[in-house]
Amino acid sequence: MFFASDNWAGAHPKIAESLAREAAGYAAAYGTSDLDRHMEERFNELFQREVAVYFVGTGTAANSLALAAVARPGGVTFCHSEAHVTADECGAPEFLTGACRLVPVPGPGGKIDKDALAAAIGRFPPGAVHQGRPMAVTITQATESGTIYTLDEIAAIGAIARANNLPLHMDGARFANALVALDASPADMTWKRGVDILSFGATKNGCWCAEAIIFLKPELASEMPFIRKRSAQLFSKTRFISAQFEAYLEGGLWLELARNANAMADRLRAGIAASAKSRLAWSTTTNEVFTVLPKEAAALAESRGAKFYDWPVPVETPNLLQQDEMLIRLVTSFATTQDDVDRFLEVLA
Amino acid sequence: MFFASDNWAGAHPKIAESLAREAAGYAAAYGTSDLDRHMEERFNELFQREVAVYFVGTGTAANSLALAAVARPGGVTFCHSEAHVTADECGAPEFLTGACRLVPVPGPGGKIDKDALAAAIGRFPPGAVHQGRPMAVTITQATESGTIYTLDEIAAIGAIARANNLPLHMDGARFANALVALDASPADMTWKRGVDILSFGATKNGCWCAEAIIFLKPELASEMPFIRKRSAQLFSKTRFISAQFEAYLEGGLWLELARNANAMADRLRAGIAASAKSRLAWSTTTNEVFTVLPKEAAALAESRGAKFYDWPVPVETPNLLQQDEMLIRLVTSFATTQDDVDRFLEVLA
Amino acid sequence: MFFASDNWAGAHPKIAESLAREAAGYAAAYGTSDLDRHMEERFNELFQREVAVYFVGTGTAANSLALAAVARPGGVTFCHSEAHVTADECGAPEFLTGACRLVPVPGPGGKIDKDALAAAIGRFPPGAVHQGRPMAVTITQATESGTIYTLDEIAAIGAIARANNLPLHMDGARFANALVALDASPADMTWKRGVDILSFGATKNGCWCAEAIIFLKPELASEMPFIRKRSAQLFSKTRFISAQFEAYLEGGLWLELARNANAMADRLRAGIAASAKSRLAWSTTTNEVFTVLPKEAAALAESRGAKFYDWPVPVETPNLLQQDEMLIRLVTSFATTQDDVDRFLEVLA
Amino acid sequence: MFFASDNWAGAHPKIAESLAREAAGYAAAYGTSDLDRHMEERFNELFQREVAVYFVGTGTAANSLALAAVARPGGVTFCHSEAHVTADECGAPEFLTGACRLVPVPGPGGKIDKDALAAAIGRFPPGAVHQGRPMAVTITQATESGTIYTLDEIAAIGAIARANNLPLHMDGARFANALVALDASPADMTWKRGVDILSFGATKNGCWCAEAIIFLKPELASEMPFIRKRSAQLFSKTRFISAQFEAYLEGGLWLELARNANAMADRLRAGIAASAKSRLAWSTTTNEVFTVLPKEAAALAESRGAKFYDWPVPVETPNLLQQDEMLIRLVTSFATTQDDVDRFLEVLA
Repeated sequence: MFFASDNWAGAHPKIAESLAREAAGYAAAYGTSDLDRHMEERFNELFQREVAVYFVGTGTAANSLALAAVARPGGVTFCHSEAHVTADECGAPEFLTGACRLVPVPGPGGKIDKDALAAAIGRFPPGAVHQGRPMAVTITQATESGTIYTLDEIAAIGAIARANNLPLHMDGARFANALVALDASPADMTWKRGVDILSFGATKNGCWCAEAIIFLKPELASEMPFIRKRSAQLFSKTRFISAQFEAYLEGGLWLELARNANAMADRLRAGIAASAKSRLAWSTTTNEVFTVLPKEAAALAESRGAKFYDWPVPVETPNLLQQDEMLIRLVTSFATTQDDVDRFLEVLA
Repeated sequence: MFFASDNWAGAHPKIAESLAREAAGYAAAYGTSDLDRHMEERFNELFQREVAVYFVGTGTAANSLALAAVARPGGVTFCHSEAHVTADECGAPEFLTGACRLVPVPGPGGKIDKDALAAAIGRFPPGAVHQGRPMAVTITQATESGTIYTLDEIAAIGAIARANNLPLHMDGARFANALVALDASPADMTWKRGVDILSFGATKNGCWCAEAIIFLKPELASEMPFIRKRSAQLFSKTRFISAQFEAYLEGGLWLELARNANAMADRLRAGIAASAKSRLAWSTTTNEVFTVLPKEAAALAESRGAKFYDWPVPVETPNLLQQDEMLIRLVTSFATTQDDVDRFLEVLA
Repeated sequence: MFFASDNWAGAHPKIAESLAREAAGYAAAYGTSDLDRHMEERFNELFQREVAVYFVGTGTAANSLALAAVARPGGVTFCHSEAHVTADECGAPEFLTGACRLVPVPGPGGKIDKDALAAAIGRFPPGAVHQGRPMAVTITQATESGTIYTLDEIAAIGAIARANNLPLHMDGARFANALVALDASPADMTWKRGVDILSFGATKNGCWCAEAIIFLKPELASEMPFIRKRSAQLFSKTRFISAQFEAYLEGGLWLELARNANAMADRLRAGIAASAKSRLAWSTTTNEVFTVLPKEAAALAESRGAKFYDWPVPVETPNLLQQDEMLIRLVTSFATTQDDVDRFLEVLA
Repeated sequence: MFFASDNWAGAHPKIAESLAREAAGYAAAYGTSDLDRHMEERFNELFQREVAVYFVGTGTAANSLALAAVARPGGVTFCHSEAHVTADECGAPEFLTGACRLVPVPGPGGKIDKDALAAAIGRFPPGAVHQGRPMAVTITQATESGTIYTLDEIAAIGAIARANNLPLHMDGARFANALVALDASPADMTWKRGVDILSFGATKNGCWCAEAIIFLKPELASEMPFIRKRSAQLFSKTRFISAQFEAYLEGGLWLELARNANAMADRLRAGIAASAKSRLAWSTTTNEVFTVLPKEAAALAESRGAKFYDWPVPVETPNLLQQDEMLIRLVTSFATTQDDVDRFLEVLA
C-alpha cells in the first residue's frame, strides 16, 4: 500500500536486467558509446523526426537544463503557479539558468489558462529592460494535480508561445502516464502541438535514474554539451542510463507500465467514488488521486501500513474539507497491484 | 586491451547484483530510506569518526559541491595546475560555487608543492578586497599524473591549510587506488592528516554511478542539503546509489578491485621498463601509466585493438620525446586482466 | 510639468556644490578616505546606533546587495507582489544573490498584509529541501503605490520576521518622503520597528547618484566588502558619493527636499479631488499621485508639455476606469514648484 | 606628492563644472535623455565608425560586462597573468559573466606574448567539452606594468583572436595615456588593429565616475541592455555620466590631461635615472613608474608626505632588489604638478 509517490518503487525487473547485462565489457565514456548513439537514434524514431537528446540524472536537472538551453539575461519563464519547477525544486531552475525567473500563471486544475498566459506575457512590453523579458513557457504533462492537458489545450498554449516567439517546454516527469491516458503518440503530444523541448522522464515509471532532455527543435540545443558538463550532469558511464532507456522503450514496456499505474488509479478512483466515507477532491485522469476522507480513516489506513502524503487544500477551493476531514494524495506506479488498491479501499468500506 | 580510462569499464558483477536486488520493493525517496541511513552509518565506521555523507551522481558534482559547501563571495581555491577541477570540468566548480575561482599552484609530479602553496596563499593579504580571499585548498589523491601524495605530504599541506584557516578538500576519484598503494586506512589518509572534505569516488573503481561527498568535519556540511538539491543532484531513488556503495564496501570489495587495477599497472610498468622499444615517462604508483613509445608501436597496438589516449608533454619536461616518439596514457581498472596487459606488452617486445 | 518620475530631476544645487568642492585635492581611494569615514559616522548619529554603511551606485544595487548579504542556497525572500525588486529590476536581485528567489505576498494598497506574510512563510516547513527556505522579508517604504506603512504596520511585519528568524529589509528609495509624512525619526521607522537592513536612497530626492546600504544590525554585513567588490559596486572615487551625502544630510536638507515633494503632491491631490474631470484612483500620502482622468484631458496635458506615465489598472480594482478614462501616475520631486502643479491642474479645471 | 594611484585625484574643474551645469532641469531617465543620445553619437565620431556605447559606473563593471556580452557556458577568456581582471577585481568578471573563467597567459613587460597566446588557445580542442571553450581575449592598454602594446603588437594579437573566431577586448582604464604615448587615433589603436570591445575609462584621467563600454562591433552588444540592468549598472540619472564625458571629450581635454600625466611621469623617470640613489625597475612609457630605491629613501619620502604603494617583485625578475632596497610604484595623474615631482626627486638627490 505504497501510495506516497511513484518514486518510492524501485525498478522494473527488465530495467534491472538490462543494466546488469551492460555491466560486462568496455565502452567509450561520456555518452559516446555505441549504445548511447543507438539510443539517440531510437528517440528519432520514437518522435518521428530528428531530435537532439541529452541524458541527465534527475528530473530537476532535465527541467533546469532544458530552460538553461534557452536562457537569456533578464529572462523569465511562464509556468503554472503550482508547477514543480517553481514549487519543489529549491530554486534549481533559477540557479542553473544563471538566475532567470519563473513567473506563475494561474489556471484551474493545475493547468495554465491560455488567456492568463497571454495576459502574463503581455505585461512584458518588448524592449522594456526593467521588467526583464519572456524567454520560455513551460507546462507539466501530466500536471502536478493529476490532470492532463488535452491535445487541443497544448496546441492553444503552443500557439501563444509561437506567436510570442517563445520556446515551449514540457515537463514530462509523468509523460507516459499522460500519453496512454490520451492514447496519443509522442509526436502528437509534443511537436505537433507546438512543444519544442521535452523533459522525458522515466525514473518515476520504472527506471532507477533515467531522464532525457529531448530537443524537438534540435537547433535549440547548440549550447547543451557545455551546459550539461558544467552543471555536472555528464555521466562518465552514460551507458547505464542508455541501458535503462533501451529496456524501457523495448516492446513498449514504458507504455505498459504507465497503463498499469493509470489502471490502478482508476480502480482507486472507482472505489473512492463508491465509498460512503470518502470522495474524490477533484477529477484526475492519470496515476495521481486526490481524496478527501475522515482523519480517522486516514489514521486507520496508516496503521495498516498505507503510505501517502497529506496534501494542502488548494487556494481556489478553500472550503473543500468538512470538520474532521483531510485531503491526501495517492500515487500509483508501475509496481502497484490490485491487491494494494483493494486493501486500501477496505479501510474506506 | 582497454586502457583509455577506468571509466570505460562497466560495473563489477557484485555491484550489478546488489542493484538488481534492490529493484523490488518500496523505499522512501530522496535519500531518506533505511538503506540510505544504513550506508551513512557505514561511512562513520569506515572513517572511524562521525562524518556527514552526501551522495551525488558524478565526480564533477562531488568536487564542485564540496567546494560550494565552503564557498564565500570573492573566494579562491588553491589547486594543482593540472588538477582535474581546473583542467577538465568545463568550469563546473566555478559555476556551482557561484563563481569562486581556482588558483593554480605548481609542483612536480602532479602534486602541489607545499612552499609554493604557502606562497600562493600569502599573496592574499587578509582583508584585501581586490584580490579576493582564500577559501579552500584541494588536492587529488591519486593525482592526475598517476602519482600519490605520501601521508607526510598530505599532513604538510593540511598544516598549511589549517594555519590559514582553510578547509582541505581531497578529490578522491581514485581514492581506493591510492589507499591500497599506501596501505593506509581511510582515516589515515584523510582527517588524521588534515583533510576536511573528501570526494569519495567509486564510479571509476567498479560502480556505475556512485560518488559520495564525505565531510570529515560534519559542521562544514550545514548548507549541503540545499546546495545539493538546487544543483539537481538529489536523486529521488537515491537507494540505487546506496545499493552500489553497499556492495562496494562489503567484505572489502573496493580494496580488492583497486588492488587488481594497481597490480595490472605494475605488470604494465615492469613490461615497459624491460622493453627496448619503450620507457616510462615518469614514475607512477597507482593505476595510471605514462609511457613513451615509437609512434609506429602505438599504431601497431591500436591496430590490434588497444585503446589509450595520447597525452600532452608536460610543460616542465619539454624534451621528453625524441623523434618519432609519442607519449600515451594507459589506465588499468578493476576489470583489467593479465591477458590484456600481456597482449599489449607483446607489441613492445 | 515633469511628473514622470522623481529621477527626471537633476540634482539640488547644494549637492552639486558639495561635489564641485570635492573636485580639488587628493584622497585615499575605494571608500577609505577621511570623508568616507566621516560620513559613515554621520550615519551612526542619524540612526542613533552603530550601523554598517556601504555606498553603492544604484537603487537596484542597494536592494540586490542588501539581500545578497543574507543570501543562502535555496533561499527565498518575501516581498509585495508589486514590489520594485520583483517587478522592475530585470532579475538583478536574483542574479546578484546567486539565484535566490522572490516570493510575492499580496496586500492592499501596495503593502504586504501581515497575515498573508505569515501564511506565505508557513508554506515552507523547516528543513524541507524541495521548497527551499525563507531567508528574508523586504518591504518598500514609501511603497510603489505611493502609500506608506504606519509605524505599527512595520512593527507587525518586523515581529513576524523576527519570529521566523528572518532579517527584515526596507527598500527606502523614497525613505525621506515616508519619514516626513510620518514625522518619525530614522530610528523610529527602522530598527525600533524591527528593520535590520535599509536601502537608503538619495538619488530620487535630489542627488545624482547616492545610495547607501545601512545595516542596522552590523553583524549582517560581514560579507559585504567582498559582495560589493565582486558585484562591481566599489567605486574608486567613493568620495563623490560621500560628498553628495554630506550635503544631503547637512542641516536637514534631505527632509526639506522631501517635504517639498510631498507638499507639491498634496497640492496636486487637493486640486484633483476638487476637479470635476478627474479623481484620485486611490489615496496616497507621499509624492506619488495616481489619478483617473479622461483620455482627452491627459492628451491636452501632454500637448501643454506635461510628462507622466500611464499606469496599469491594479488587478484588485478591475473596474476602476469608466469609458474613455485612463489611469496615470504623477510624481513630484524636490524640484517641483507650485507653478508646475497649478499649470497641470488648469487642464483639469 | 600623491603618487599612490591616479584614482586618488578628484575631478578636473571642467568635469565638475559640466556636472554642475547639468544639475538644473529635467531629463528622461535611464539613459534615454537627449544628452545621453548626443554622447552616444559623439563616440561614433570619435571612433570613426558606428559603435554601441554603454555607460557604467566602475572600471570593474566595464570589464566584467564587456566579457558578459560575449559569455557562453564553459567559456574561458585569455588574459595576461597580471591583468587587472584576474588579479584585482575580486572575481567580478567571473561572477558577472555567470562563472566564465580567466586563463592566464604569460609575456614579458605585462604584455601577452602572441605565441604563448596561440599556444594557450591551442590547448582547447574544438568541441572538447571537458576543458571548456575559448570565448574571448582581453588585453590592457596601457598595461598594469606601465608599458604599452605597440600598434603592431595589438594587430598581432587581434589576428590570433580573429583566426580563432574570438572577440578581442581591451581594458582601457588608462586608454588616453596609451593613446597620447603612441600618438595614435582611437580608431588606430582599436578596431583598425582588431579590437572589438573597449572599456573606455575616464575615471582615472579626471572624471568622478565615467566609464563606457564601446562595442566597435555593435552586433556584439545585442544582450547588453539586459546584462547591464540585471547587473545593477543602469543609472537612473545616467546624464551625470554623460555630462562628464561631454566635458572630457570637449576640445580634446582628455588628451591634454593624459599628456600631463605622462609628462610628469617622464619627469619622474628622468630624475630617477639621473639619481645615484635609485633606478627604474623597468622601462615604462605612460603614467606609471616603477622604481627601486633604498628603504631609507622611501621612508624619508613618506615622512615628507609622499604617497605611493610598495610593489611586489615580479616573478620573472626575482633578483631585482639588493639589500635594503625596495620596489615602489609611482603613478602620476591629470593633477600632478612639476612641483610634486620635483619635491619627490629631492629626496633622491
